[in-house]
Amino acid sequence: MKIFYNKNKLIKFTHNHKIIGFVPTMGSLHKGHISLIKKSQSECKNTIVSIYINKPQFNNTSDYKRYPRVLKKDISILKKLKVDFLYIPKEKQIYPNGPNKNIKIHSFKKQLCGKFRANHFEAIVDVIDRFIKIINPKKIYMGEKDMQQLKIVDHFVKINHRNVKIIGCKTIREKNGVAYSSRNNLLSSSEKLLASKIFKILLSKKNKILNKSISIDLIKKEIINLNVKKIDYIKIYDINNLLKKNNKVKKYKIFIAYYLGKTRLIDNI
Amino acid sequence: MKIFYNKNKLIKFTHNHKIIGFVPTMGSLHKGHISLIKKSQSECKNTIVSIYINKPQFNNTSDYKRYPRVLKKDISILKKLKVDFLYIPKEKQIYPNGPNKNIKIHSFKKQLCGKFRANHFEAIVDVIDRFIKIINPKKIYMGEKDMQQLKIVDHFVKINHRNVKIIGCKTIREKNGVAYSSRNNLLSSSEKLLASKIFKILLSKKNKILNKSISIDLIKKEIINLNVKKIDYIKIYDINNLLKKNNKVKKYKIFIAYYLGKTRLIDNI
Repeated sequence: MKIFYNKNKLIKFTHNHKIIGFVPTMGSLHKGHISLIKKSQSECKNTIVSIYINKPQFNNTSDYKRYPRVLKKDISILKKLKVDFLYIPKEKQIYPNGPNKNIKIHSFKKQLCGKFRANHFEAIVDVIDRFIKIINPKKIYMGEKDMQQLKIVDHFVKINHRNVKIIGCKTIREKNGVAYSSRNNLLSSSEKLLASKIFKILLSKKNKILNKSISIDLIKKEIINLNVKKIDYIKIYDINNLLKKNNKVKKYKIFIAYYLGKTRLIDNI
Repeated sequence: MKIFYNKNKLIKFTHNHKIIGFVPTMGSLHKGHISLIKKSQSECKNTIVSIYINKPQFNNTSDYKRYPRVLKKDISILKKLKVDFLYIPKEKQIYPNGPNKNIKIHSFKKQLCGKFRANHFEAIVDVIDRFIKIINPKKIYMGEKDMQQLKIVDHFVKINHRNVKIIGCKTIREKNGVAYSSRNNLLSSSEKLLASKIFKILLSKKNKILNKSISIDLIKKEIINLNVKKIDYIKIYDINNLLKKNNKVKKYKIFIAYYLGKTRLIDNI
């Protein structure tokens, strides 16, 4: 596995060697990431993974500081997977003139997490835009757990990088049902149990919620009764346009974001 | 020849049909444009030409208003050339949210015309960026008469649209030596004669100027003596990096910008 730390060396390299599959990550790799990487390896002649904790997309410094960092372990996982290239950027080379304050993203941003995390999606789009310009990949693999992120990035890339395709990949779950997330490492064992219970409630009531034979508010109460103190949202949205459920469309998901202690988790079912 | 007026229709079209060669113009087509189009046709499976007078790149409204407009004649020229596609954008569709004020361009902009035309090159880069996102071409053909524009756009596209190539094409000249330019249509016959005289002075003294056996100031005086009232610059620059002549590099050109009446002309020899 060839590791790049220097942006200019990577740019030079990709001018002579076409890199096809790209899996952007913030490290602390789990089975979700691994499934993205394997998908890329199965579809692409070669694959690059990036590990970069993108500071501007965090809404507060403590969340950024708490984010898990296990670089050595990550590198050994990627080596075992026989990933071709790894890019670990230097902070200064990604934002030589600071973040782009002119990023225009789709109005998907106004719903769900966009309401609670100002500028979060703009910052993600900004960094993906920068990575595309450095790597020039053909396909980028992203997880469906972060559905809103996936939709917003896909919309941006369709307009701005017409030769790049975003590939959404199924959410991978732990045995207890909780979607893999680097943030799961921040949970205590009792919090993990809670996350699993919440998943099971949503899963068991899924059909009733979607056909409205049970109200979202009732589910919300049930979750709050588990002693979950903060729920940013539970909503039913069309997965194609992230608009609220109406009767014309058939593909819905339940979207949830909630806190266990200081840790914010999201999921969609 | 298929003519597109609507951006969204063109985007939709180019999602199913790959357009290869692109010649952006502001209309009022002359032999310079025609040579770009023929170059594209000789190299590319198909060619699109755009006609769009890009207001933000003009430094004053009167220059914008004076710019020649002969759309019917242009369309008939393009039909005769058997151009595949023509794009005549609607103003509002190019700048739905106004020009991008965050465009970062190469420091080439500080020399030559950049000194005299604030924001001119940023506005050109902005519109080319927008056209690339709409058309997604493989090659863009631009004339070497506008050498600084060519260099700045090339630099921007290399970084921001890695799958697009800028092709610089030789300057085409009238019999009297004057480089073809849509602005030539604004000249009186005595002004045309003057432009030709200036070209001939530069051409005859070229070698002496480049090896410094005659000074640029002397040439400047000679041109002023022809009753040319305003010369923005006459400079010798390395054509690779648009830096001032030094003894290490061998490829120089003489760059000139001057006014005949209200009409500003540029050339490089």
